[in-house]
Amino acid sequence: MLVPRRGEVPLRSYPQTTEMPSWQSIDGHIATPAGFRAAAVAAGIKKAPGALDLALIVSDAPGTSAAGTFTTNRAAAAPVLVSRRHLALSRGQARAILVNAGNANAATGRAGLEAAEKTTRAVARLLRVPVEQVLVASTGVIGLPLKVELIAKKLPALKESLASADSSAVTEAIMTTDTFPKSCVLRSELAGKTAHLAGIAKGAGMIHPRMATMLAFITTDAAIKPRTLQKMLSEAVEKSFNRISVDGDTSTNDTVLMLANGASGATVRSGDQSWGWFLAGLRQLAERLANMVVQDGEGAKKLVTIEVAGARSPGDAERVARALANSLLVKTAIAGSDPNWGRILCAAGYSGAHFDPNRVDIRVNDFYLCRQGLDTGFDEAQARRELDCKELTIRIDLHAGRASTRFWSCDLTHDYITINASYRT
Amino acid sequence: MLVPRRGEVPLRSYPQTTEMPSWQSIDGHIATPAGFRAAAVAAGIKKAPGALDLALIVSDAPGTSAAGTFTTNRAAAAPVLVSRRHLALSRGQARAILVNAGNANAATGRAGLEAAEKTTRAVARLLRVPVEQVLVASTGVIGLPLKVELIAKKLPALKESLASADSSAVTEAIMTTDTFPKSCVLRSELAGKTAHLAGIAKGAGMIHPRMATMLAFITTDAAIKPRTLQKMLSEAVEKSFNRISVDGDTSTNDTVLMLANGASGATVRSGDQSWGWFLAGLRQLAERLANMVVQDGEGAKKLVTIEVAGARSPGDAERVARALANSLLVKTAIAGSDPNWGRILCAAGYSGAHFDPNRVDIRVNDFYLCRQGLDTGFDEAQARRELDCKELTIRIDLHAGRASTRFWSCDLTHDYITINASYRT
Repeated sequence: MLVPRRGEVPLRSYPQTTEMPSWQSIDGHIATPAGFRAAAVAAGIKKAPGALDLALIVSDAPGTSAAGTFTTNRAAAAPVLVSRRHLALSRGQARAILVNAGNANAATGRAGLEAAEKTTRAVARLLRVPVEQVLVASTGVIGLPLKVELIAKKLPALKESLASADSSAVTEAIMTTDTFPKSCVLRSELAGKTAHLAGIAKGAGMIHPRMATMLAFITTDAAIKPRTLQKMLSEAVEKSFNRISVDGDTSTNDTVLMLANGASGATVRSGDQSWGWFLAGLRQLAERLANMVVQDGEGAKKLVTIEVAGARSPGDAERVARALANSLLVKTAIAGSDPNWGRILCAAGYSGAHFDPNRVDIRVNDFYLCRQGLDTGFDEAQARRELDCKELTIRIDLHAGRASTRFWSCDLTHDYITINASYRT
Repeated sequence: MLVPRRGEVPLRSYPQTTEMPSWQSIDGHIATPAGFRAAAVAAGIKKAPGALDLALIVSDAPGTSAAGTFTTNRAAAAPVLVSRRHLALSRGQARAILVNAGNANAATGRAGLEAAEKTTRAVARLLRVPVEQVLVASTGVIGLPLKVELIAKKLPALKESLASADSSAVTEAIMTTDTFPKSCVLRSELAGKTAHLAGIAKGAGMIHPRMATMLAFITTDAAIKPRTLQKMLSEAVEKSFNRISVDGDTSTNDTVLMLANGASGATVRSGDQSWGWFLAGLRQLAERLANMVVQDGEGAKKLVTIEVAGARSPGDAERVARALANSLLVKTAIAGSDPNWGRILCAAGYSGAHFDPNRVDIRVNDFYLCRQGLDTGFDEAQARRELDCKELTIRIDLHAGRASTRFWSCDLTHDYITINASYRT
């Protein structure tokens, strides 16, 4: 955390939880919340033989609330278009999410749209739920047709293996270039009812803070009306997945989907204490998943938290944070543990934010590199040690106002180039 | 060039030159235009002993017109602030440009400003010209103090070696991570008078199409009033240096300066035929230099021309071109000769431009990868051969309107990371 000092405003923290039960991290998986089941199979969509690539998440209770946030990319993929439409048609209810990795079903035209619709119809028939209550997401290569028959053939087996225990294979099935599975499960109690929040996510390229980046799926057994759920999800996404950047590319398939089935008996209502309680948990979960995504950014070796303070407006704070998070020169300097704070000031300078460069302070962790726009004459070895941390914080105080924000980024290494110079072939 | 076909508009070309004398590329250097002299010395600012790092360009004639375009970075370096002010004070007249490499004199506060002013005063005294007619530019490391005494000590020697012949050392003196010197000299004749245009430039990181990127200096012996010169320079820069991208970072020091001394007797006037004639030459020169900068982008192996056609508006065309020019995924795919057109469509999709992804055509050179948003089923080996070219063109037709534009970019390779992970130390 930033230590407040004269003219410096501490970063916004979570909603006050002093009077509210906190959320505890527990072992578990996406089907840990009561009333959920999940499964994964190898359908042959990924090239590697036997690799898990198709997953199904199911809520057993009718009337399960659903919410989603989707990419703003104009070339949005077929599954994004279908899920968005289904959420509208069902007025925020869903019973199942079908996810595949290995093929993004993006830039696939009318045939891709038909493929996505066909798979949702097949799932609906199999589970005997309305088709608009089936959501779908895809990740992988763009521009190649998705073979529906591969998916259709495996759906019965997928249904057979649906389980509420040991669904961790699902996390693996949605991975592409991810190097580790990303999941988080939280538990808390409100008014004698124990509720759970579970989430999984996949990265790891095309990560840019303009929208619900990458794929993430969240389940909870709390009871939340669809509109309330959507509001809370949007707010949590804005503060987590929308504040990370690996490479500045906003994908065609970015999707965050959330299901709330009420099986725990804990009810969340807009306006009462339960709102703050649940939102705190949801933000904690979303931020944890978002951090894991950026930490596993393609080729990334370091998780970089960017804290901007003293901005003239929240918009200015965000501009500076985005510029730092996306600057190749900043990201490569961090990769090389080079205390080149001039690049940080430079990126802030072209961000469009208003400030006086002669008043800016820049720190890595708590170590000052620049005060009032000037080199502090710091010890180079010490600065390198700070930059060598696997998790580090770049702090810039513009001394131009009271607005602040926090973003997450990663370093840019040779491995990013290696991974992306021949991803497709 | 784009071959026009139904619904496709050819890219804007240079102003019609059918009735106008053309500009021929000739051997030469920055002092080839009549009445200019230039020199370079090793002043010890660069780390490498004996490396040329200080250059002076002088126009002998009083009343030499001057124009400049500068970085929009809020943390603009001291030499940018000083040159901008001098151009205003002198109402667009200048006699000398002093350039150093090795230290950017950026993020150096009041002391940096004083250092820049001190050097201009020393040059003014030495050459007996008004101080506001001395312009200054710096490039190199940010945040370290510029040692004025190193420069002051060398000024007399620099003056002594001023010459109108063989000034190619100047091009070398302004280089930092550049791998080759960048210069271009043009000659043309109007109404019996032979005029010259000469330009030099340096790159090679922090190149982003928001302003007169990097350093470039242009001399001409045509006679042009200051306001006309500024107008023409701004227009030429907008179409050249502002349309290249290496890494998306806009430097604190970007500067293009131009001097016109009238020594050739050829006069350029706003509104008459000479305007189109001279602008054509200036654009040719600026585009050539800009191409060299991007070709020598840090770690770059390929010069990538990006042609956008069929956009709904010029703004949309530019948005798409910028997104493609800056997308790490597109740039790494080109580095690996991977015909991953999905990334190109994806970048266009998040650019903010309006278009229907199902109508988009994408080509590398003249080879179609995608038609109407769908994979053409192209021959992979052939696509790779096209992408293996050292100079290649990515063409995207949005089929959404009649606007078009052209940008220049480069591939993103391991060497960019190597160069930038430890530039400072």
